Amino acid sequence: MEDNRQKGILTVVSGFSGSGKGTVMKSLISRHEEYWLSVSATTRSPRPGEQDGREYFFIAKEKFEELIESDQLLEYAKYVDNYYGTPLPYVREKLLQGRDVILEIEMQGARQVKERFPEAVLIFITPPSMEELERRLVNRGTESAEVIRGRLLQAAVEARAMEEYDYILVNETGGADDCAERLHGIIQSEHFRSFRNHSVIRAMSKDTMKGEII
Amino acid sequence: MEDNRQKGILTVVSGFSGSGKGTVMKSLISRHEEYWLSVSATTRSPRPGEQDGREYFFIAKEKFEELIESDQLLEYAKYVDNYYGTPLPYVREKLLQGRDVILEIEMQGARQVKERFPEAVLIFITPPSMEELERRLVNRGTESAEVIRGRLLQAAVEARAMEEYDYILVNETGGADDCAERLHGIIQSEHFRSFRNHSVIRAMSKDTMKGEII
Repeated sequence: MEDNRQKGILTVVSGFSGSGKGTVMKSLISRHEEYWLSVSATTRSPRPGEQDGREYFFIAKEKFEELIESDQLLEYAKYVDNYYGTPLPYVREKLLQGRDVILEIEMQGARQVKERFPEAVLIFITPPSMEELERRLVNRGTESAEVIRGRLLQAAVEARAMEEYDYILVNETGGADDCAERLHGIIQSEHFRSFRNHSVIRAMSKDTMKGEII
Repeated sequence: MEDNRQKGILTVVSGFSGSGKGTVMKSLISRHEEYWLSVSATTRSPRPGEQDGREYFFIAKEKFEELIESDQLLEYAKYVDNYYGTPLPYVREKLLQGRDVILEIEMQGARQVKERFPEAVLIFITPPSMEELERRLVNRGTESAEVIRGRLLQAAVEARAMEEYDYILVNETGGADDCAERLHGIIQSEHFRSFRNHSVIRAMSKDTMKGEII
């Protein structure tokens, strides 16, 4: 039995640290309530102001490893000594309900998602240039020169993998709202991809004409 | 030498006879002047009211065969005893100028375009159902029952090939403007596909950092 209603679209959003991706996501969610933004699980401790279930689900290492064992994570990675991952059950439920789901995750996780859900849409958000990225990181004033240097180097390495994404959005300075609208436009257009519309094809196919024409 | 400005997008629009595709295209062009709608060449005689260079370029059979020989046609087909095809030079020129070009052509031509320009975007416009297609053809009142039967049969056969298109747009009754806006949204979103944005990837790549970071 197949449901004719289209399933939700799973979108992955990644971007360099300093790309302004967080601001873009906030803008998107505030204008378009239809999206469901997935919350990751992590084994790291909450930072001041962070709330369980909002920034992350904060869980114990043993619990996280149980989720890995029982294949309940859509993707996960270990950074330093902490795990980060996306619990699968919620995501699957929302998609089946026809809700568009967005994951804001790193490249490593994006690759895992694409492997598991080839129909997922991968979007990469980038500043217009390396110079602009450096300017933003410096202006933020929260990191040392050495950390900024590290972030730029990481960006330069990650840039090679931008091609693995389906779409690239340039987040111009002060352009987070524009960027959010483009992101929205991409997801909306993806709903019309032919591989997501087999029910339309079936409705027009020869089989439905049996006895009428043939 | 590579131009950093993005080339225009080549979009192919096809649809069943009776899909309302013509109305959708008129709506699109009247709202969005940025698109350049290609005019086909044909060897058939102009019908009353048709104007050379507007509906078609009306040319002699010998001239058409010259264009085939000299590889000046992006696609062509022969129906009954007449040739129909898209002259390549204009299309190429507009694309290089960064202009988005739209071809309204049949399936056979769409396939030829995709083969020659794999980055082209193929969009298929369909009524919501066979019943609705039949209703529209009957209401049009211009064709005999036999011709309508033939068109429906052709649609049923063509439906199998809908999957070859990148996108499927359902043109609901009275919804030509909505359909045109969706078409516009798709082309706009296609501009952000990563394979059309190598210059952005280059701007962020390691090479641009030489001497600064490494």
